[in-house]
Amino acid sequence: MFAVEVRDHIMIAHSLPRPVFGPAQGMHGATFVVDAAFFTKDVDEDGLAVDIGAAMTVLSEVLKPLNYKNLDEVEAFNGKVSTTEVIAKHIFDQLAQAVSEKRLGPGSHRICRLKVMLHESHAARGWYEADL
Amino acid sequence: MFAVEVRDHIMIAHSLPRPVFGPAQGMHGATFVVDAAFFTKDVDEDGLAVDIGAAMTVLSEVLKPLNYKNLDEVEAFNGKVSTTEVIAKHIFDQLAQAVSEKRLGPGSHRICRLKVMLHESHAARGWYEADL
Amino acid sequence: MFAVEVRDHIMIAHSLPRPVFGPAQGMHGATFVVDAAFFTKDVDEDGLAVDIGAAMTVLSEVLKPLNYKNLDEVEAFNGKVSTTEVIAKHIFDQLAQAVSEKRLGPGSHRICRLKVMLHESHAARGWYEADL
Amino acid sequence: MFAVEVRDHIMIAHSLPRPVFGPAQGMHGATFVVDAAFFTKDVDEDGLAVDIGAAMTVLSEVLKPLNYKNLDEVEAFNGKVSTTEVIAKHIFDQLAQAVSEKRLGPGSHRICRLKVMLHESHAARGWYEADL
Amino acid sequence: MFAVEVRDHIMIAHSLPRPVFGPAQGMHGATFVVDAAFFTKDVDEDGLAVDIGAAMTVLSEVLKPLNYKNLDEVEAFNGKVSTTEVIAKHIFDQLAQAVSEKRLGPGSHRICRLKVMLHESHAARGWYEADL
Amino acid sequence: MFAVEVRDHIMIAHSLPRPVFGPAQGMHGATFVVDAAFFTKDVDEDGLAVDIGAAMTVLSEVLKPLNYKNLDEVEAFNGKVSTTEVIAKHIFDQLAQAVSEKRLGPGSHRICRLKVMLHESHAARGWYEADL
Repeated sequence: MFAVEVRDHIMIAHSLPRPVFGPAQGMHGATFVVDAAFFTKDVDEDGLAVDIGAAMTVLSEVLKPLNYKNLDEVEAFNGKVSTTEVIAKHIFDQLAQAVSEKRLGPGSHRICRLKVMLHESHAARGWYEADL
Repeated sequence: MFAVEVRDHIMIAHSLPRPVFGPAQGMHGATFVVDAAFFTKDVDEDGLAVDIGAAMTVLSEVLKPLNYKNLDEVEAFNGKVSTTEVIAKHIFDQLAQAVSEKRLGPGSHRICRLKVMLHESHAARGWYEADL
Repeated sequence: MFAVEVRDHIMIAHSLPRPVFGPAQGMHGATFVVDAAFFTKDVDEDGLAVDIGAAMTVLSEVLKPLNYKNLDEVEAFNGKVSTTEVIAKHIFDQLAQAVSEKRLGPGSHRICRLKVMLHESHAARGWYEADL
Repeated sequence: MFAVEVRDHIMIAHSLPRPVFGPAQGMHGATFVVDAAFFTKDVDEDGLAVDIGAAMTVLSEVLKPLNYKNLDEVEAFNGKVSTTEVIAKHIFDQLAQAVSEKRLGPGSHRICRLKVMLHESHAARGWYEADL
Repeated sequence: MFAVEVRDHIMIAHSLPRPVFGPAQGMHGATFVVDAAFFTKDVDEDGLAVDIGAAMTVLSEVLKPLNYKNLDEVEAFNGKVSTTEVIAKHIFDQLAQAVSEKRLGPGSHRICRLKVMLHESHAARGWYEADL
Repeated sequence: MFAVEVRDHIMIAHSLPRPVFGPAQGMHGATFVVDAAFFTKDVDEDGLAVDIGAAMTVLSEVLKPLNYKNLDEVEAFNGKVSTTEVIAKHIFDQLAQAVSEKRLGPGSHRICRLKVMLHESHAARGWYEADL
């Protein structure tokens, strides 16, 4: 299995209004450094699993509606708790849609798996990964 | 698959008294930066795979009997060679027991896989991972 | 010159309501990974510039009133814009006060310089450093 | 599953003479920080998945013919485009051969999987992984 | 002293045709991860040492003529050996010129020092720093 | 000011038998990732502050007597407490001697300052720096 992974980041505010979150129930925020990995079974005739430039562009497009936002006011998280895991799954779904729309280039159909990892500090991170 | 990973560390002494270890046969030591990942198939109603706070607490509890110790004198490693791999497996087993004792919270039963990685320097690391 | 540096982090929300901040004018947030360095001209009779344990405790105490907060509602930043630089200076001032109160142990008076660095992402950081 | 991973690096020049590579079509270069992971199902009687020293030696041997080279002139990449993915696969194949030649020590036959990751910058990396 | 530091990178080819460079005398290459730090004595009325967005833009502009190039063919290095140190000094000079041209915004005149660090691998880096 | 910095590491055991060290009074150990920086005012006719290869060789030579050792039995630390700071100063002194013996090459006399940083975990480090 081949994979190409690119990194970007978002800076967001949110609250986690459930008792389990203790001191994180109120309005606070996070920088999420986001690693998005695209997996393919082989490389194309240019030696590419995925074009890194296209991967960076698509990741940036997917993150833009979240960056510098208060996630409590972002429609995608209506009725949800915007934990690291839930945000990772949201970004995964957006990237999966980009793949299905062939926004990763002509070889998009070869992408068979995605992994989206969010680093929330130097000591904690969460991710979602699945086959497409 | 979702995962949450937390980081802590231990500072230990040990010897590796077998010929294969060359200059590491005598008493020396290591800082092991430990990454423990907890995997679940879905998130709970709070949007959590695992509560990061609980994960950090449990990892810290599991590491405490090893931290600042000479592993040659720690009962868990009696008759064993305390390589990076063996320590990783030991921590894995302790975390698996914590999961079975529901010390990761009410959703502990949802944890289906663990990965324990020990960084022994900037250039080498070892890990153990398995389904529960 | 000797130095000891310890790392901790905070997760905060804030707005930066000035035109220069463009998309960061609204409510958003950040994880700041904080490195605090304590400088001394020599080591004491225990071989210490500063006790790392004491340094970690004091840094944690100084960060606690900021962690999981909306800085727009934190009194220390009333009438200020809570940029990375301003937060770094605030933490510096709090640590300098801790030094003057000898909260870094009996050798606190030997600390002659502090540096407080805030990493706001994998690609940007800011700091404040000065002699005491 | 156990794994041991070691890190080394190469500094190479190459061109990527296909339209998809845009500004990278001409002669340029890269530092590839290379992580090679060796997987085994169990540890041997010395507590080892793989001897880290042997792993570092073999990785260094495999990288030596590439280091400080212009890959456009390296026979292994004749008729190929030396993308990150293609180089990762080349190193994987060389390591797989080293395993089959028992250059990882007497327990080489226990190695059942390899993963070769190339970091090309702080923001992008690619890898190839497969069972042996 | 305040400072703001931003990170970007370049991927270049070059040769180092002097005996002291041993195996690096021929055509090879490097990824240089570049950290550029801008120092000021105080912050402006917006709480800024330097606007991070402006710093990133200027660093990107300065790096663009080097990125994806063979430095042996770049005029700025005519008659010079393009070592890490020499490239760091070149980038420093370009950033210093950007400061003097007020391309870092209206507060450019407050910038009193620059530091340009080039990471050439996980194990080596070089830098140039000086007052303006 | 120019600088070149190289990285290596040691894995040591030691005890810190003074009350201030609490749980670290007994035999334990550490990996110290060591960064050694060599400063010069200018570069030589080859564009070098210091030859990185020579710097790596000398750092490796200086670390060799410490690596895989119990520092309680290393003569250099007789009657001393081998804290991170004290070890950093010891390595600094050894590197300073190497500079005075011209082991960094013909331009050794140009080296005017050294900085030796020891990373003891992902969250703590100490260093010693001084002019020569």
